[in-house]
Amino acid sequence: MSGDGMLHWKTFAIGCSLALTLFLFAQHRPVMPEPNEFRAVIDLTHNLNDRSPNWEGTEESPYQAKELGNLERDGYYSRVFRTQEHYGTHLDAPAHFAAGAWTVDQIPAEHLVRPLVVVDVHKQAKNNPDYEITVEDIAAWEDAHGMIPSGAVVMAYTGWDERWNSQKEFRNEQADRLTHYPGFSLETARFLVKTRGVVGLGIDTMSVDIGATTTYPVHVFTSKENIYHLENVANLALVPAAGATVVVAPIKLEKGSGGPARVLALVR
Amino acid sequence: MSGDGMLHWKTFAIGCSLALTLFLFAQHRPVMPEPNEFRAVIDLTHNLNDRSPNWEGTEESPYQAKELGNLERDGYYSRVFRTQEHYGTHLDAPAHFAAGAWTVDQIPAEHLVRPLVVVDVHKQAKNNPDYEITVEDIAAWEDAHGMIPSGAVVMAYTGWDERWNSQKEFRNEQADRLTHYPGFSLETARFLVKTRGVVGLGIDTMSVDIGATTTYPVHVFTSKENIYHLENVANLALVPAAGATVVVAPIKLEKGSGGPARVLALVR
Repeated sequence: MSGDGMLHWKTFAIGCSLALTLFLFAQHRPVMPEPNEFRAVIDLTHNLNDRSPNWEGTEESPYQAKELGNLERDGYYSRVFRTQEHYGTHLDAPAHFAAGAWTVDQIPAEHLVRPLVVVDVHKQAKNNPDYEITVEDIAAWEDAHGMIPSGAVVMAYTGWDERWNSQKEFRNEQADRLTHYPGFSLETARFLVKTRGVVGLGIDTMSVDIGATTTYPVHVFTSKENIYHLENVANLALVPAAGATVVVAPIKLEKGSGGPARVLALVR
Repeated sequence: MSGDGMLHWKTFAIGCSLALTLFLFAQHRPVMPEPNEFRAVIDLTHNLNDRSPNWEGTEESPYQAKELGNLERDGYYSRVFRTQEHYGTHLDAPAHFAAGAWTVDQIPAEHLVRPLVVVDVHKQAKNNPDYEITVEDIAAWEDAHGMIPSGAVVMAYTGWDERWNSQKEFRNEQADRLTHYPGFSLETARFLVKTRGVVGLGIDTMSVDIGATTTYPVHVFTSKENIYHLENVANLALVPAAGATVVVAPIKLEKGSGGPARVLALVR
């Protein structure tokens, strides 16, 4: 090989070394996650207290807390509390509506950390409290953000959480003695489960079914499929429609039909 | 420039293009997190039931659950439950021991998703139930894994969760009428908070203080610093000592002194 040829090879080798160095540099990710790995942690959970809307619309709250230890008297502060499983921001386990389906403690941990999809229907719901989220609403989301990733949690932002401080407005019971608030249609739930493989549905109202139902078709269908629900979710207006990760963290009640859940959105 | 020189420059340019291509390829990260973004989600939470060890060691459990709705009778299954805030896998809010410090609902969401550091002292604790985790134990962790990242949650794996199914063994009360199990020393807690900026401490025993204390120095010191504790943590043997992210998800009790928490480790 001529000297010139050698020189070409040397130059090429320098280029390759540079390539390798840059490649390795770009591949390098710190082993230890940094505290600021997520740009923000958004809390999608309402405070648990005795002033929140309850399912039956009773004056008396299904939640009470009582002081046990008093800091001045006992040197520590502690309480005991009592609540229904389906109060406040909570999770419905599939066993809530389907025999033999998962109780809250049986939901696999892998189902609790998932891509979060937020479908914004607050405009549609504004003038129609019986609004049912349609497959077209899902299609509009996919037009804007691409196909819903497999295994996601899909939450509907209906704007209903603005009513949270008034049980009357939140339940919106009318002369027909039915409550009226938006929810998922059965067709939409079926589409999300069967063609998009979602593991959970969430909403900022009291139920993934519309308020005015008496047959709860979404509950019945999804529970048999071991899909969980999150109800009374807070702050959905603050999360991006796509790209966040949701952590769904229900209290781990043995054999629970559901329970209060902490719901956090991790935003990069 | 000579023809040969041009050739060198062309070869160099090819190398650079290769470098750039590989660099851009390696930099590419999908916008939408995939369900398998985390290799595993490890649940560090014990089931909440009426058979778990309780602080006072009473026969009667501070936790009860009662069925309200029955699937066959009512078409849905639901329950009401009652528990002390400091039972099962739970979080101590700083307000548990310090006036004016954060109640459980006041802990910033950003403090709940953090790098997880697991310090393994189960060998030290095996023959000494009064073992206090030392600054040397922390130094040994740092020798192996590098400096604890700022803002981490540090958990001690003492092996105590093997005793979870026996209140007698878990509390380990002795003839001196004190309980005996390992915990953090005050010096270690102070080191972690003051020099490593940890936001929380965790342990698989009933308390971040050793069982045999009567003054709870770690509780007193950390609570004033708005540092939370996780107690009765499960499955710490299953998590890597370094590199995981912990999600600390306490039930969001308004003005709570603490409460049952779901604790999940996200492993890449």
